[in-house]
Amino acid sequence: MSHSELEPSGRSAAPQGREPLEQYIADVSRWVTAALSQSIPEQWDVPQVLRESMEYSLQAGGKRLRPLLVTAACEALGGSRDAALPVAAAIEMVHTYSLIHDDLPAMDNDDYRRGKLTNHKVFGEAMAILAGDSLLTHAFYSVVQASRKHGVPAERVLSIVEDLAEMAGPRGMVGGQVADMEGEQGMTDLQQLQYIHLHKTGDLMIFSLLAGGRIAGADEGQLAALHRFGTQIGLAFQIQDDILDLVGDESKLGKKTGSDLKQQKVTYPYFIGLEASLAEVKQLTAAAHLAILKGGFNDPSRLLEIADYLMSRDH
Amino acid sequence: MSHSELEPSGRSAAPQGREPLEQYIADVSRWVTAALSQSIPEQWDVPQVLRESMEYSLQAGGKRLRPLLVTAACEALGGSRDAALPVAAAIEMVHTYSLIHDDLPAMDNDDYRRGKLTNHKVFGEAMAILAGDSLLTHAFYSVVQASRKHGVPAERVLSIVEDLAEMAGPRGMVGGQVADMEGEQGMTDLQQLQYIHLHKTGDLMIFSLLAGGRIAGADEGQLAALHRFGTQIGLAFQIQDDILDLVGDESKLGKKTGSDLKQQKVTYPYFIGLEASLAEVKQLTAAAHLAILKGGFNDPSRLLEIADYLMSRDH
Repeated sequence: MSHSELEPSGRSAAPQGREPLEQYIADVSRWVTAALSQSIPEQWDVPQVLRESMEYSLQAGGKRLRPLLVTAACEALGGSRDAALPVAAAIEMVHTYSLIHDDLPAMDNDDYRRGKLTNHKVFGEAMAILAGDSLLTHAFYSVVQASRKHGVPAERVLSIVEDLAEMAGPRGMVGGQVADMEGEQGMTDLQQLQYIHLHKTGDLMIFSLLAGGRIAGADEGQLAALHRFGTQIGLAFQIQDDILDLVGDESKLGKKTGSDLKQQKVTYPYFIGLEASLAEVKQLTAAAHLAILKGGFNDPSRLLEIADYLMSRDH
Repeated sequence: MSHSELEPSGRSAAPQGREPLEQYIADVSRWVTAALSQSIPEQWDVPQVLRESMEYSLQAGGKRLRPLLVTAACEALGGSRDAALPVAAAIEMVHTYSLIHDDLPAMDNDDYRRGKLTNHKVFGEAMAILAGDSLLTHAFYSVVQASRKHGVPAERVLSIVEDLAEMAGPRGMVGGQVADMEGEQGMTDLQQLQYIHLHKTGDLMIFSLLAGGRIAGADEGQLAALHRFGTQIGLAFQIQDDILDLVGDESKLGKKTGSDLKQQKVTYPYFIGLEASLAEVKQLTAAAHLAILKGGFNDPSRLLEIADYLMSRDH
């Protein structure tokens, strides 16, 4: 199903006077990519090769999905897109660092990512480790700029720092990565797979939504709705990935399908079958819609569109 | 010169009614070490092997010098030692992560540190990378707890977050590490060596002092004095390291002297000679004293003691 098929459902069509979702996605992506290239202050005395190594991976593309969630959540509550920029850039730095470290020889040992040489293939292993460390550290600097440059109250920004540390750290993304490594040694059951999906991928999505909400001054009920929404689309996103690996169109995916099977990676279809996995994606997406619709948002439509877009992607 | 020789100088003797410096160092070290072992909330669902890998390196000892600077700066301004604990623990996490990553095969490839196997020798390279990533991330969580648990105002804690990101990141410690790697390829002059010393080691010391000051509500003048003090003792500390490597007592150092020479590492004595290096340590220590004495502190004596202690250490 291509995501243009969604529009007849009505709920996902762009309202009058607003940019269509595809335009919005392209705009946010361009805007965040530009911000990332200026994220290290010019006057800082940083070794040139370190700047280049960080920049190489920051500019290696990708969907900028997490920044999109930050801005969409912020705007759904009437917040300004500008105020969301430092956090949108920060979450992309964290995502990028995690990819650099994941690709290392000691981890997945990948030579290419999105058709480009991985960081350590270009800059060497030591520099790739340090570029990842730098990006992770600098993400927290970027978060603080929401207060310094856009006047977001310190108490809100501090909660964003706390969330980022919790959801990117040992209880969050890194915990998910460790569980995934253990899973490759044959220890996985469905509960373990859910832990991996929730933390390795889901937590940064949940963080992005909560942060967008916090910037806009979300109340506890709205934050809880964003948390539910993020948990559900995060899991659905990963199940969709598992499904695409099994039955996707290789020309659209840009990689071979069936790689999970060949690598004997356990996936949702492996545990519950393809049909039930497809049904689970639908059910989670519906539940995500409901969470947002009941959340008391100024304008929930963009978040609903994004949920549909993610679940209907074919690559 | 052993550091007990300092006491006749008068200025460094512990005032009546206060614990002597050695006792204070031992107390802070024990207290921070205990806090580190409880730094990850019990209720967090963290993979056991990740907990163990983080804990292994956190408990591997060391002088806990950076936490000492946090508490001493905080107390010099009349702040409470308790309020300084989350940041004292955080800076030790950052220091520990940097050691784990430095020891990796792609970096220094060390099998032992302080007589114990390095993290990757025990847990494997992938887990060591992830344990380092986790510690760095979790340090920011710990900083935020100064607000959550001790009521330090959000604005102050946010400045501590910003400082930590700046001084541990690309402009700070990681930048120094990269410059050090480049230096090993023969590109070093004295200015480059100062950059390495200032950033690789000095920045975390400066951060620790500023953070202690911020917790206690330091004004701009006091922060500037702490910054000067930190810059000077940080550089003196590293020159002293270079000197000890050349002429130290192997039995006290716990490692072979002359290793810098054998590794053809450039050092202060290499550039300016041993006598001038010793004089530089003395001059920097005196300047550090002066910065603090003119800084308007409630009780500068502990900071002065620590400056003398660091410069007179024989291991």
